[in-house]
Amino acid sequence: MDMYESGVGSRVVQIDTPSLLVDLDVFEANLARMSEFLRQGSTKLRPHSKSNKCPVIAQKQVAAGAIGICCQKLGEAEVMASHGIRDILITNQIVGPIKIARLMAVARGCDLKVAVDNPGNVDALAEAASAARLRLGVVIEVNVGMNRCGVLPGEPTVELARHIMRRPSLQFRGLMGYEGHCVDLPDFQERKTQTEKAMALLVQTRDAVQAANIEVDIVSGGGTGTYMITGRYPGITEIEAGSYVFMDTTYRQALTDFDNSLTVLSTVISRPANNRVVLDCGVKTLAGDYGTPAIEGVRPALSCGLSEEHSTWVYDSNMQDLAVGDKVRVIPAHCCATINLHDRLFAVRREVVEDIWEIAGCGKTR
Amino acid sequence: MDMYESGVGSRVVQIDTPSLLVDLDVFEANLARMSEFLRQGSTKLRPHSKSNKCPVIAQKQVAAGAIGICCQKLGEAEVMASHGIRDILITNQIVGPIKIARLMAVARGCDLKVAVDNPGNVDALAEAASAARLRLGVVIEVNVGMNRCGVLPGEPTVELARHIMRRPSLQFRGLMGYEGHCVDLPDFQERKTQTEKAMALLVQTRDAVQAANIEVDIVSGGGTGTYMITGRYPGITEIEAGSYVFMDTTYRQALTDFDNSLTVLSTVISRPANNRVVLDCGVKTLAGDYGTPAIEGVRPALSCGLSEEHSTWVYDSNMQDLAVGDKVRVIPAHCCATINLHDRLFAVRREVVEDIWEIAGCGKTR
Repeated sequence: MDMYESGVGSRVVQIDTPSLLVDLDVFEANLARMSEFLRQGSTKLRPHSKSNKCPVIAQKQVAAGAIGICCQKLGEAEVMASHGIRDILITNQIVGPIKIARLMAVARGCDLKVAVDNPGNVDALAEAASAARLRLGVVIEVNVGMNRCGVLPGEPTVELARHIMRRPSLQFRGLMGYEGHCVDLPDFQERKTQTEKAMALLVQTRDAVQAANIEVDIVSGGGTGTYMITGRYPGITEIEAGSYVFMDTTYRQALTDFDNSLTVLSTVISRPANNRVVLDCGVKTLAGDYGTPAIEGVRPALSCGLSEEHSTWVYDSNMQDLAVGDKVRVIPAHCCATINLHDRLFAVRREVVEDIWEIAGCGKTR
Repeated sequence: MDMYESGVGSRVVQIDTPSLLVDLDVFEANLARMSEFLRQGSTKLRPHSKSNKCPVIAQKQVAAGAIGICCQKLGEAEVMASHGIRDILITNQIVGPIKIARLMAVARGCDLKVAVDNPGNVDALAEAASAARLRLGVVIEVNVGMNRCGVLPGEPTVELARHIMRRPSLQFRGLMGYEGHCVDLPDFQERKTQTEKAMALLVQTRDAVQAANIEVDIVSGGGTGTYMITGRYPGITEIEAGSYVFMDTTYRQALTDFDNSLTVLSTVISRPANNRVVLDCGVKTLAGDYGTPAIEGVRPALSCGLSEEHSTWVYDSNMQDLAVGDKVRVIPAHCCATINLHDRLFAVRREVVEDIWEIAGCGKTR
């Protein structure tokens, strides 16, 4: 596509901008640190691939000990299954005949589990699975306080589990509850208190389901900001953390266990004032949904304004170290939404491009 | 790519979600309304294709009387030139050897003008144009109050114009000044006052450049929120408005001259509470950089929370008219950033897909 694109073996400065980089030394250290954490406990890791949408990364996570992956979209699951990932949990509701037909195709090729929170959707899945002569794994999404999707904890969940048990084409596999309202609480004690409250709801609900003589295999929760809490919480069988391989400025405020490996390589395109630096990355290449990004190795700006194809960094005084044409690395404020804006990742080690990873599940997949 | 994708002739309900729709009746009415406005004055329209990144739309705008298009990225200009657009203004700085080499390739095939605000960048462009035996058109970006890129009005602009005039491989074409700080001011009088202040700076700067015996052909400014002001401001030769073909909830608060033609077709994937509706469009398919989206034809929500692949709509009371599986159309809060998240537009008329337009300049282009 690009006529002047750099390839494997190029130096970072030869890469056109804005481009997404992953620093392999940092990335691998993050992988290793998570593996070490898991070795010291019994909870498994099923990393969320919504963060990376990148089959190579999922394969590396599985090689490092992950039991499989989570997906948020069916399109991601299709891409991951076609790249050899054999154990997938879709932590989202798959609704409507088009998507359910596609879901059956994925279920044929791997151990697939999908979240449900609605009896009508359960019936539609059961009928499709029956027609396809499949037994489809389902987990109930429990609302543990995030107030997005999910059945209420306790009796409403037990009732939906009973409903699932009446459908022989479905296999009830367990529960998931994502504490999205906790993962980036900056105060650790507050995060721990809120996360434990959410996980207690989930484990109590497991007990209620088991009391109805229904076997619960999976109890899944936890993000990167809470992995150290959910990953040690009794009864949680697997955690969903995925951003730990990349981190971002928001997650780094919440924890320093992992380092930032993901940056957007950008060019200084304008120096219109002594204290103002404009880069060629805006909300179309650097997510602006929350938080404030940072330029690696450069002192903090007073403010960073994002427009579509520009970021404008204002400093408290003269900014002599950045000139028009300089390339810098910008650490995103939100890694997952930033990756969705790109179609490939330049995997670099000590200033050299070692590999180029396709973000095969990026935005366009439904 | 998608196995179960609907094509031309399908009904809207057959389209998988989340997908981007443009309502052709509304889109064409918007085009016609702008043409009518232009017929009543002397200012020309050069619509900004950063909004749509879609060659078919650029072609329709030119057919409706636009003199050419604006682009924000070189990748957009490459795509548009390769689709037959012959007059392009890149309203942004193109910096660095890789991009400048690509710029020369585009300049060979069309009447290309590029914005500059820095003498070093001017020199780099001049040398590349000279080596390529081209005469490259340049306009100076003037900072008319947005404080992003741009030279200060008055003498600093005259000085850069003189610098350009000394380079025979460059052709000085004029000035551009985008009043991005004005375009969505909700109060019209305030918007008019601020916009006229910005345009006065631009036209005074034109006078200063002309006083130095330098011809000024182009004086460009104006967005969709200010087209009725800049498009009638004496001395402005062309306006850059582009979003007028789509509109969005933010622009509709600022003006009602055009209607919303762009929506994200979405599915209700969860009804976890009487007053809560969850759709399958989040910040990865519906821009979350500013404003609040709306569901077409549905009463306003108390709040709309966007996560990556979900939007959660909370209502003041029971919400009986939306069930799991229903498809709805969501009007984005920011059309330009939303389009960047998709790779095609379903062009629909009265519930039937009439065409599918490729968003050929989408995010991945650099």
